[in-house]
Amino acid sequence: MRIVRCRIGGASRYGVLDGETIQLLAGEPYGGIGKTGEVAALAEVALLAPCRPSKIVAVGINYAAHAPEFGLAVPGEPLIFLKPPSAVIGPEEAIVLPAMSDHVEYEGELAVVIGRPTKAVDENEALAAVFGYTCINDVTARDLQKQDVQFTRAKGFDTFAPLGPWIETKLDPTDLELITTVNGERRQAARTSAMVRTVPTLVSFISQVMTLLPGDVIATGTPAGVGRLVPGDRVAVTIAGIGTLSNPVVLHG
Amino acid sequence: MRIVRCRIGGASRYGVLDGETIQLLAGEPYGGIGKTGEVAALAEVALLAPCRPSKIVAVGINYAAHAPEFGLAVPGEPLIFLKPPSAVIGPEEAIVLPAMSDHVEYEGELAVVIGRPTKAVDENEALAAVFGYTCINDVTARDLQKQDVQFTRAKGFDTFAPLGPWIETKLDPTDLELITTVNGERRQAARTSAMVRTVPTLVSFISQVMTLLPGDVIATGTPAGVGRLVPGDRVAVTIAGIGTLSNPVVLHG
Repeated sequence: MRIVRCRIGGASRYGVLDGETIQLLAGEPYGGIGKTGEVAALAEVALLAPCRPSKIVAVGINYAAHAPEFGLAVPGEPLIFLKPPSAVIGPEEAIVLPAMSDHVEYEGELAVVIGRPTKAVDENEALAAVFGYTCINDVTARDLQKQDVQFTRAKGFDTFAPLGPWIETKLDPTDLELITTVNGERRQAARTSAMVRTVPTLVSFISQVMTLLPGDVIATGTPAGVGRLVPGDRVAVTIAGIGTLSNPVVLHG
Repeated sequence: MRIVRCRIGGASRYGVLDGETIQLLAGEPYGGIGKTGEVAALAEVALLAPCRPSKIVAVGINYAAHAPEFGLAVPGEPLIFLKPPSAVIGPEEAIVLPAMSDHVEYEGELAVVIGRPTKAVDENEALAAVFGYTCINDVTARDLQKQDVQFTRAKGFDTFAPLGPWIETKLDPTDLELITTVNGERRQAARTSAMVRTVPTLVSFISQVMTLLPGDVIATGTPAGVGRLVPGDRVAVTIAGIGTLSNPVVLHG
């Protein structure tokens, strides 16, 4: 099942995507799918980020081939950091390159969307906490990441967390192809089977630290091939079985 | 004016504290104070954290005397990091020492509560974005902070962001006494005039990075004197003109 969120008549609504038609829901999809009978055409609405996370927990260096790009080793435990909810944008919304940075990069990643309140789950219970999967671009000001050491500013600018296009709820995350393109040119290509820590390991680990809530997002790390974005670019993250999250890039006003 | 949030009849309600009486509000206080005429006695309700931040932006090394405690220099720009909303607890709620850490410390701080959507404000407009001030304890697993480098896990555990007891809306933040005690013994004593970056500077800087929303919290950094918490301790942060945030400390179950 594909869950979208869209803007209709000034309100944001969740829906189930059925071909080119969206079956609208009464509320959030996490407690159960309550269709209202209303429909909308996919072509006629603006898709929003498919969830509204209270937090985005991201994982650093989770593909071994990405570690050498920063001269880093794979850490002994998952390395986690937070992106603020204010950074979230949806498909087709513009990534805005901020005045504070001279070097912003894309990082295509598989995003896990949590489905229920989850605290200290074991790995073997972790997938039951997952509502579904979507694409995330963990946009990063690489110059500020190196300067600050803490990742918060570098990864926390408004528009630095494109999410979408929808949540696929029936998906095995263990061996999905992930492709990131810039202006149609392939820059990252990997399979999620190359993750150092699997989705259940990450959900379990993070849930030992902080209670995860419905709609919360775990960004599972980016593979090799990160690179720079400049104004006028279009960056797209495609994950097999989900779809494509595509965003234009603009300079700050 | 002192704004509280409290649990009444299973619901959470905002109110204005007037002596020992709480005048309940219809909704959130940020857009305007809408009293319903209902009252509650302070002694008869449980106070909750006085706001529900969509993000908590904290500032590292903002008192020069605290820097040597970590062998760090004051950074050239404000060093920011995030604590997740899931870490928030209110007055008298227990700080839970997690299994993952062997060394947890208190960090008493002045917390700024934002009153309106705020993006890229100048320093001279920044105080207009502030709704008021409260106390925060930026509880930190010091062992994990050193191990991870990224502060997220060390500062992100559930219960690691005690907030309260209320928001004082009429307050000049420039020279307030801040005292942290453990079991009644004074451990931190400083004045906010010793901050490296002032409240307007921090609000302005952070708002260049991320849009601040009503209820969001900026934790302005801790002075010298941080130290360990063990089960059975009671830690209290007192700021002149606001009040005292007091929390017991317990071991994980």
